[in-house]
Amino acid sequence: MKAVVKTSKTKGFQYLDMDLPTVGNEDVLIKVKAAAICGSDMNFYMWNTAFCEGLVKNLPFIPGHECSGEVVAAGSYTTRIRIGDRVAVETHIPCGNCRQCMDGRPHTCLNMRLFGHNVNGCFAEYTLVKESAVRRIPDGLSWEAGAMLEPLGVVVRPVFDADVGMSTVCVTGCGPIGQFAVALASLLGAGRIFAADINPERLKLAKEMGATDLINVTETPDFGDFLMSQTEGLDILIEASGSVKSFTEGLRSLCFGGKAYLIGNPKEPVVIENPMRMITQKEIVIKGSWGRELFKTWEKSENILLSGKINLDKIITHRFALHDFEKAFETAKRGEGCKIMLLPEESP
Amino acid sequence: MKAVVKTSKTKGFQYLDMDLPTVGNEDVLIKVKAAAICGSDMNFYMWNTAFCEGLVKNLPFIPGHECSGEVVAAGSYTTRIRIGDRVAVETHIPCGNCRQCMDGRPHTCLNMRLFGHNVNGCFAEYTLVKESAVRRIPDGLSWEAGAMLEPLGVVVRPVFDADVGMSTVCVTGCGPIGQFAVALASLLGAGRIFAADINPERLKLAKEMGATDLINVTETPDFGDFLMSQTEGLDILIEASGSVKSFTEGLRSLCFGGKAYLIGNPKEPVVIENPMRMITQKEIVIKGSWGRELFKTWEKSENILLSGKINLDKIITHRFALHDFEKAFETAKRGEGCKIMLLPEESP
Amino acid sequence: MKAVVKTSKTKGFQYLDMDLPTVGNEDVLIKVKAAAICGSDMNFYMWNTAFCEGLVKNLPFIPGHECSGEVVAAGSYTTRIRIGDRVAVETHIPCGNCRQCMDGRPHTCLNMRLFGHNVNGCFAEYTLVKESAVRRIPDGLSWEAGAMLEPLGVVVRPVFDADVGMSTVCVTGCGPIGQFAVALASLLGAGRIFAADINPERLKLAKEMGATDLINVTETPDFGDFLMSQTEGLDILIEASGSVKSFTEGLRSLCFGGKAYLIGNPKEPVVIENPMRMITQKEIVIKGSWGRELFKTWEKSENILLSGKINLDKIITHRFALHDFEKAFETAKRGEGCKIMLLPEESP
Amino acid sequence: MKAVVKTSKTKGFQYLDMDLPTVGNEDVLIKVKAAAICGSDMNFYMWNTAFCEGLVKNLPFIPGHECSGEVVAAGSYTTRIRIGDRVAVETHIPCGNCRQCMDGRPHTCLNMRLFGHNVNGCFAEYTLVKESAVRRIPDGLSWEAGAMLEPLGVVVRPVFDADVGMSTVCVTGCGPIGQFAVALASLLGAGRIFAADINPERLKLAKEMGATDLINVTETPDFGDFLMSQTEGLDILIEASGSVKSFTEGLRSLCFGGKAYLIGNPKEPVVIENPMRMITQKEIVIKGSWGRELFKTWEKSENILLSGKINLDKIITHRFALHDFEKAFETAKRGEGCKIMLLPEESP
Repeated sequence: MKAVVKTSKTKGFQYLDMDLPTVGNEDVLIKVKAAAICGSDMNFYMWNTAFCEGLVKNLPFIPGHECSGEVVAAGSYTTRIRIGDRVAVETHIPCGNCRQCMDGRPHTCLNMRLFGHNVNGCFAEYTLVKESAVRRIPDGLSWEAGAMLEPLGVVVRPVFDADVGMSTVCVTGCGPIGQFAVALASLLGAGRIFAADINPERLKLAKEMGATDLINVTETPDFGDFLMSQTEGLDILIEASGSVKSFTEGLRSLCFGGKAYLIGNPKEPVVIENPMRMITQKEIVIKGSWGRELFKTWEKSENILLSGKINLDKIITHRFALHDFEKAFETAKRGEGCKIMLLPEESP
Repeated sequence: MKAVVKTSKTKGFQYLDMDLPTVGNEDVLIKVKAAAICGSDMNFYMWNTAFCEGLVKNLPFIPGHECSGEVVAAGSYTTRIRIGDRVAVETHIPCGNCRQCMDGRPHTCLNMRLFGHNVNGCFAEYTLVKESAVRRIPDGLSWEAGAMLEPLGVVVRPVFDADVGMSTVCVTGCGPIGQFAVALASLLGAGRIFAADINPERLKLAKEMGATDLINVTETPDFGDFLMSQTEGLDILIEASGSVKSFTEGLRSLCFGGKAYLIGNPKEPVVIENPMRMITQKEIVIKGSWGRELFKTWEKSENILLSGKINLDKIITHRFALHDFEKAFETAKRGEGCKIMLLPEESP
Repeated sequence: MKAVVKTSKTKGFQYLDMDLPTVGNEDVLIKVKAAAICGSDMNFYMWNTAFCEGLVKNLPFIPGHECSGEVVAAGSYTTRIRIGDRVAVETHIPCGNCRQCMDGRPHTCLNMRLFGHNVNGCFAEYTLVKESAVRRIPDGLSWEAGAMLEPLGVVVRPVFDADVGMSTVCVTGCGPIGQFAVALASLLGAGRIFAADINPERLKLAKEMGATDLINVTETPDFGDFLMSQTEGLDILIEASGSVKSFTEGLRSLCFGGKAYLIGNPKEPVVIENPMRMITQKEIVIKGSWGRELFKTWEKSENILLSGKINLDKIITHRFALHDFEKAFETAKRGEGCKIMLLPEESP
Repeated sequence: MKAVVKTSKTKGFQYLDMDLPTVGNEDVLIKVKAAAICGSDMNFYMWNTAFCEGLVKNLPFIPGHECSGEVVAAGSYTTRIRIGDRVAVETHIPCGNCRQCMDGRPHTCLNMRLFGHNVNGCFAEYTLVKESAVRRIPDGLSWEAGAMLEPLGVVVRPVFDADVGMSTVCVTGCGPIGQFAVALASLLGAGRIFAADINPERLKLAKEMGATDLINVTETPDFGDFLMSQTEGLDILIEASGSVKSFTEGLRSLCFGGKAYLIGNPKEPVVIENPMRMITQKEIVIKGSWGRELFKTWEKSENILLSGKINLDKIITHRFALHDFEKAFETAKRGEGCKIMLLPEESP
């Protein structure tokens, strides 16, 4: 089969012929229909050492983890998923045996394997996944919509948890995850929705997704002052940029009892200057949110996309055949558009 | 009336004759029966500039905010409290008109006045308080127990919020607040309760209050390693020391989904080295908790002390007549004992 | 002043000249600008004995409790509200001293007095209310919108509590309360919203407020079967009709883990035929919800109306001068329209 | 193998030689070490038609579902459980594929099979269970303690959910489930704990488990009056008797905001006479609770028993060899003792 492969610790991928993987007893083989590029794929492409070392176990490996496809083979121990099923894949492949898995929290498995990170992913004609991480998708969803369930799910949990209805929300970071957060906050009846980013095009898109107020962080790096001048304090911060500065600007803007959700992945230490004033006295809540609950979050995500209330046509801005992966990644690298799709069936 | 008074920005208090305060329409005048020394009183005694500047508005002023007493006069607009009532005082005096007060969260009032901090307190024969901050206490509670409702209430909220039953808990800081946290966690059925402090006497007392495991922080400053070797991860951290190091050691020891409560008041910045690993990926919750809900928390605190299940005889270790305030504060300064009472009626 | 007065235990009201009430120390006198008719006013009008006996203490009395107006006098003990303020009135006037009031739950006061029920109400040129039940309204709200905050608040609590986002909801009863429930569920991103009533006009309006599916209860009295054929089980039932049959039809349609909110006031016993199957095994939650939290709910209601996302022009269907009260009540009695306003300033 | 078998729709069981079950791919074969009698086993013994019809699918079948034992064989698809493991069994065997299972709520599976109810159970030398319903038990627990995890788990969820700390609780029904509820409420720091039953011996035991107040329902059938005379209203009702009268007596005794948990299985309709007064106005919450969450509840139950804070020696009052099952059931029928154990290894 054809696959996009990481072969060395330098920039770039190779487009190679690979053996079709052997289907183990608990495995499902999927013919990939749509695969989307995520920030971590870009880290692999660029070989961002801080990100890749420790995470990537062996080279060569196939990246890609947001996908949908059709099941073409299923191992002899499988029970739920059948050949012919239209499916999407959960990136976090739980072991099923650890304390977290036993407690009904497999998305925080202690022995997690990561699809497209430390096991082969979906930038290929076929991909092999353990049945426990495969989810049948509703008939009403297109292949591309199916591939969006994974990133959408990242925001489903914090935004539903936050009780955004009529609240004042700020989303920092307007990549695909941030755009979904803005769109979902809007769908769930948030009051004012501030969107913050450094990229004017992304801010423009955030407005289309439902943001009521835009913050250009390049122009206003200390945007906490602005937020406090405009509101009685934020009720909810959704930090989706990975920028420590954005987190602390948002944090200091929270109202008494406000909640800050960390879903971006800051690469530097967070410094909270005056914890008594910024957390204790205001009874702030800071929550980390990681991935999707299996498969409660997926059901919500499916219903959201089925409702048609989030416009995927604005989120999915580019499509490339699999063999054009280089154009796709260079487009992403320039910060153009939002979600970029790789379509294996368009490759010869 | 006799009062302990802060007269200058240097160490120490004066024991002076002061005019009896004038009872305003909404005020209640209380004959103080028992008053306890808190950490902030020690800051006033030592004139810890960082703490006092900004907080103290005028000199001279009367410190002290943990007390009980008998009502001897009540202003003409008062409705709830009557002459002869046995009462205790809420330190956080809310304005009653701001967004927080209107939303049922007066303990986080935007215009808060602080009894014994920026308005005169209870280290005196009489003290004057707005009726809205006065609470009748049950017959079954002694005057000294009445004066303990305020500090006990500080831990009632985080410990009840935390669902400690059968959980693994660590309380960092074993001053009176920490001791109450240990005792309450034990009362509510916590599993293992780790108590951490630098003072061996306090650790010994923590054991008597219900701690199952002790951590001498002087000997084991990096006690996160110890916690992780002993447990599958803490479920709950109650940070009551104000030490940033204790907070971060506790934070990194939390299990997936663990909760950290900040009730101590760190004077330095908190640094979270790797927020993705320490918060996001583990879905940690950090919560600030401030004071007591009016008066929901008080009802719980009263029931706790009425139940007799927390042994106040171990918490209240010293008693002094009001005029012996200097002995009392020097005892506290040496880190001796736990709660120290000032008893105005024992002064001539 | 002119007032609509209940003078005898028979059908009807009188339009009379009454003395202007004396303003007590804690009272606020309000010049009524807009007042709306609620179901309980209709009970007074018709003298529905089962409803009125026990509730009404003395005749004559002035009904009406949904209103807005301008403050024209304020007692000497008042602190928050000033002459000239634009205000609305909370129907549930708490004592401020009982266990419920002390615990921050004054809306369930043990000594509740009810504005327009057992103390004089707002169908008059002026109305007198204790300051503690008066709320300033935002500039952006019209007088009529101000009078809608009270009934809207009845649904704010259950609908926000229910986590309706993407859920399948059924609202039984499409009077003004039910219409607000449908509109708010829609605003907060509910999935399918079933609306059930016996009145086709009300169902038509429910569709305009956001219902996706209509149930004519006259045609389909056993509508539980219909609901189960259409869904995988309701997630949420909002019972706003007071019909016991509607409640049990909704209850049996709930999915596992579903929630039923009782806000209507059934006059007959509720019978749950098979509690093991209908509640225990499915882990159903039944919740009573009563009125509005002071004033947390009001802030939410104000923000909802300020957002313009609920179309009051469809809810407020009729307006009458105060002296035309009889036309207003006869219109309501015929089940015409939705909310009916009485406007004292339009009377000579 | 020897087994206690239900062979006909009349009173009694047979003690028979049965074939050892064939171990399927996903199955685990367990050598039973301890098995306990539950109320549903008594229904099978007596052939209580209302209970048995619809539930029992085929005769003969082996009853019994509370047990522990050692794994002696494991099917080829099993991954978690190994030969030699000490295990206990979850009664609710989920399908793993339905909406409830997919949403992380397998304990409310839509295609549930019931161990010892509609598939063969544990009153035998060996029992066969799907791996997904088998849980390894900690070394520190005896076989008999292992067999108590299932019934203890029934109360773990409602009692933990209820926030019993310092609350006023009433447990109606003092069979083994009720005794565990009393013991757990006590362990989690409840204030007053009322226990209600018709059997004086059971009430006596309830006192030993931590009840502070006893209600003999034979003497005081309308015990709601008593509860209200003794308290400011119950905070929490745990209904574990299956008596509709007990439920309604408890329900009307709840304070404003009180919570009623239904874990008993009433065989008759529940009638709520005045829903407005009994539910809506008081904002009562009624919750059904069913079984145990897989396996979150089990971890809590294990920790409770490992803590030694619930005295099983008082709960387990009788032990019989398996072939003496008739003595065991007749003892249970007379209402003697509390939990009765059947020990297969004591039979020849």
